Amino acid sequence: MRRFDQQLEDLQTRLLEMGGRVEAALHNSVGALADRDEARARAVLAGEPSIDAMEIEIDDFAVRLMALHQPMARDMRLLAATIKINNDLERMGDLAAHIAERALSLMQEPPLPVSDILRLAQLAEAMVHDSLDALKSQDAGLAQRVLESDDEVDQLRDWLYRRLILWMQSDGPAVPSAMHQLFVIRHLERIADHATNIGEDVLFYLRGVDVRHHAALAG
Amino acid sequence: MRRFDQQLEDLQTRLLEMGGRVEAALHNSVGALADRDEARARAVLAGEPSIDAMEIEIDDFAVRLMALHQPMARDMRLLAATIKINNDLERMGDLAAHIAERALSLMQEPPLPVSDILRLAQLAEAMVHDSLDALKSQDAGLAQRVLESDDEVDQLRDWLYRRLILWMQSDGPAVPSAMHQLFVIRHLERIADHATNIGEDVLFYLRGVDVRHHAALAG
Repeated sequence: MRRFDQQLEDLQTRLLEMGGRVEAALHNSVGALADRDEARARAVLAGEPSIDAMEIEIDDFAVRLMALHQPMARDMRLLAATIKINNDLERMGDLAAHIAERALSLMQEPPLPVSDILRLAQLAEAMVHDSLDALKSQDAGLAQRVLESDDEVDQLRDWLYRRLILWMQSDGPAVPSAMHQLFVIRHLERIADHATNIGEDVLFYLRGVDVRHHAALAG
Repeated sequence: MRRFDQQLEDLQTRLLEMGGRVEAALHNSVGALADRDEARARAVLAGEPSIDAMEIEIDDFAVRLMALHQPMARDMRLLAATIKINNDLERMGDLAAHIAERALSLMQEPPLPVSDILRLAQLAEAMVHDSLDALKSQDAGLAQRVLESDDEVDQLRDWLYRRLILWMQSDGPAVPSAMHQLFVIRHLERIADHATNIGEDVLFYLRGVDVRHHAALAG
């Protein structure tokens, strides 16, 4: 068997690979929505099972390392953070697939403007990217900035919801498209929430302080 | 320090207590929605931080037991299942709070019929109850039935969505209420999904077989 610290490194590599796949799925689902690109949406859906399989593999690997090595303090926090981040990534993969499904449904309906949803998607994508970057480079400052970005997402989401309600009230035939868009907005918001969770887990790992549920942050 | 098997039992007791609180939060959020009962909705929101705190406590307890005792096979599966179930319960608590928020928003709008949403809520509540019961009584058959109930939830949800679209298309002023209801339906659906996760985790613990992502179930 390889040395424990080498195994820990292998585990991190797999987790970052999973992160890369989830980022690609998100990017493609949003691209499919913007360009009404059916093939691209279907490719996201086709890729979901491999993300699910990877989650189970990483989970098993992390639990096995915990059980076999009884790691102390920092290493134990890394394993605990890995299990949580892995779970957040798998859920993001699901949400990217949900966006791809909505993109397919939207292709059946008359187009509604999408540019402001794309702005929300860019914010969410940047948060996902930064949270993984913070993990990779062990950068607490960057993890902290991910947590702070979540407010901007919430503001844009509220504005988008209000506009959708106006569209639905003034234009009955637009209701199905608006409803699909509403779910896309919700999925993007939840992706941003999962990126926030990853930022919190990175801070927990680096500082040993639990910042879940927005407890006060040590500076 | 108490014996390991006693500590495992204490952990299970805490997890089932958490389950009871989440069940109550769900029941009260749905009751607040049905009866337009502001005080009851606010009580759900006030109770959320204590559910969040309990999640962190149970999580720490389980990880500590893993690290200290290096349990084998069945005990290790119980601890891994506990961590996952704990996380699902915390998310259900969040979703119950979201329902309570929507109940408050709906009180500001003209009433829409709710009886079919209450039917969906009953299905979701029964799944939550049965999943916790399966955990408590180590009943694989009951856990299996929770997994099977999820289809009924999905069918009712689709029917509710179609009806909401018709309401929004024919009655502009009803759009804000319909949108709040749409989110309630979504939250209930996700609560049912988390109950399904708990059912899967109970099966994993009892049988040592991973049934996540709807892999084939051994009979």
